Amino acid sequence: MRAHGSLTERLRVVLVEPEGEVNVGSIARLIKNFGVREFYIVNPKAKLSGKAREFAAKAIDVLEKAVICSSLDEALKDVDVSICTSAIVGGSRDVLRHPITPKELANIVARYSRIALVFGRESTGLTRDEIGKCDLLLTIPANPEYPTLNLSNAVGILLYEVYVAEHASPLYEVADRNVLELIMKYVEDIVRVFNEDERKASRILVSFRRILYKSLPSIGEAYNLLYLVRKIDVMLRECKGKR
Amino acid sequence: MRAHGSLTERLRVVLVEPEGEVNVGSIARLIKNFGVREFYIVNPKAKLSGKAREFAAKAIDVLEKAVICSSLDEALKDVDVSICTSAIVGGSRDVLRHPITPKELANIVARYSRIALVFGRESTGLTRDEIGKCDLLLTIPANPEYPTLNLSNAVGILLYEVYVAEHASPLYEVADRNVLELIMKYVEDIVRVFNEDERKASRILVSFRRILYKSLPSIGEAYNLLYLVRKIDVMLRECKGKR
Repeated sequence: MRAHGSLTERLRVVLVEPEGEVNVGSIARLIKNFGVREFYIVNPKAKLSGKAREFAAKAIDVLEKAVICSSLDEALKDVDVSICTSAIVGGSRDVLRHPITPKELANIVARYSRIALVFGRESTGLTRDEIGKCDLLLTIPANPEYPTLNLSNAVGILLYEVYVAEHASPLYEVADRNVLELIMKYVEDIVRVFNEDERKASRILVSFRRILYKSLPSIGEAYNLLYLVRKIDVMLRECKGKR
Repeated sequence: MRAHGSLTERLRVVLVEPEGEVNVGSIARLIKNFGVREFYIVNPKAKLSGKAREFAAKAIDVLEKAVICSSLDEALKDVDVSICTSAIVGGSRDVLRHPITPKELANIVARYSRIALVFGRESTGLTRDEIGKCDLLLTIPANPEYPTLNLSNAVGILLYEVYVAEHASPLYEVADRNVLELIMKYVEDIVRVFNEDERKASRILVSFRRILYKSLPSIGEAYNLLYLVRKIDVMLRECKGKR
């Protein structure tokens, strides 16, 4: 099987008997936020109107197009792999509750074309029978003293994890090395004006270089810094000329 | 400065003029889910009663202990670094809006002792003035067609990201190599019964070995598989004996 489509496009979010309108609406919004294609709801206990529409915000169309199913089997039809979620992790003998992590999820999604992510009821989660119908179980790591996430937050974290697996690149373009080296040239010039001894000067320059490159400056940030150091250099030379 | 404490314990979540009760309550719950220590609210527009208490679930104590401030400056007092969030990313000239990613956040949190994560209003976010008061800006990558996450989902994703940076280990103990090799021994035995030619047998065994080790089986899963292959082996030998 050759997997295709962007990672979140391959997902089908399946809610089993969701009880809260706010959650169903928030999840519709998340589905649009992360570009998921399919939204299935098995026997909704919550109304898909009212608060659901309010919390769907600009994703009311997602809510309206949700596929309503009468059973989990129906919702899992035609998927390549199904992954259900639970906050309850089992002991070593309870293999039904040996979960994978969200980080492992992205690897799995990358290999299949149609992946169902199944989420249980707010009150009681999924039954053992429902967990048994899914191929894999996933748990979101959290504080053992209170590990149960709100439904919409659990969905949000998983969709985010899959989304960033594909879009992990930085959100801005890093400045070109030429610009950074031009900055360094001015800083060298400035340090020369200080007349520090060689070792001290070298330590200052190394420190500046390290900070500059570690900061991964954006093009705009770099040009503003270039403007500053050039200005300082010019002013220092003028001062020196006057003395 | 020596940073100390678990990563999420170092965080202070700061909400600026939150408008929705559901969000404030959900965020209190997230704070407990991920073991964050400090929760500050600047001029809450939402009531901290009603829906806020309902959505806080088992974290009503977090809601009750929230520190109410009258200004962002007050909420940022005594922190080592402040990071605000926005869905709006600027062009190359607007350095105020050059963001870091959530993955970069965990690195930063690891280096400081007290970190404020600042979140703006649901309706209008943070003002440019407020963004300017923070040391760094962060954006959660999302679908460019609708990148604005619900407030509580944005908080959840960031707290999760910091939490897993520290607790990234698998959630179950992987079975010992001895057990897996015992499984392989039985499978070899089984394949021998089939009387396949050498090359075919070797391909089957390599495939089984690969699947077994890639699956990182839990102790329970491995012992169940061991039980199965041992049983098959015994039954096949019995069959053979009878013929």
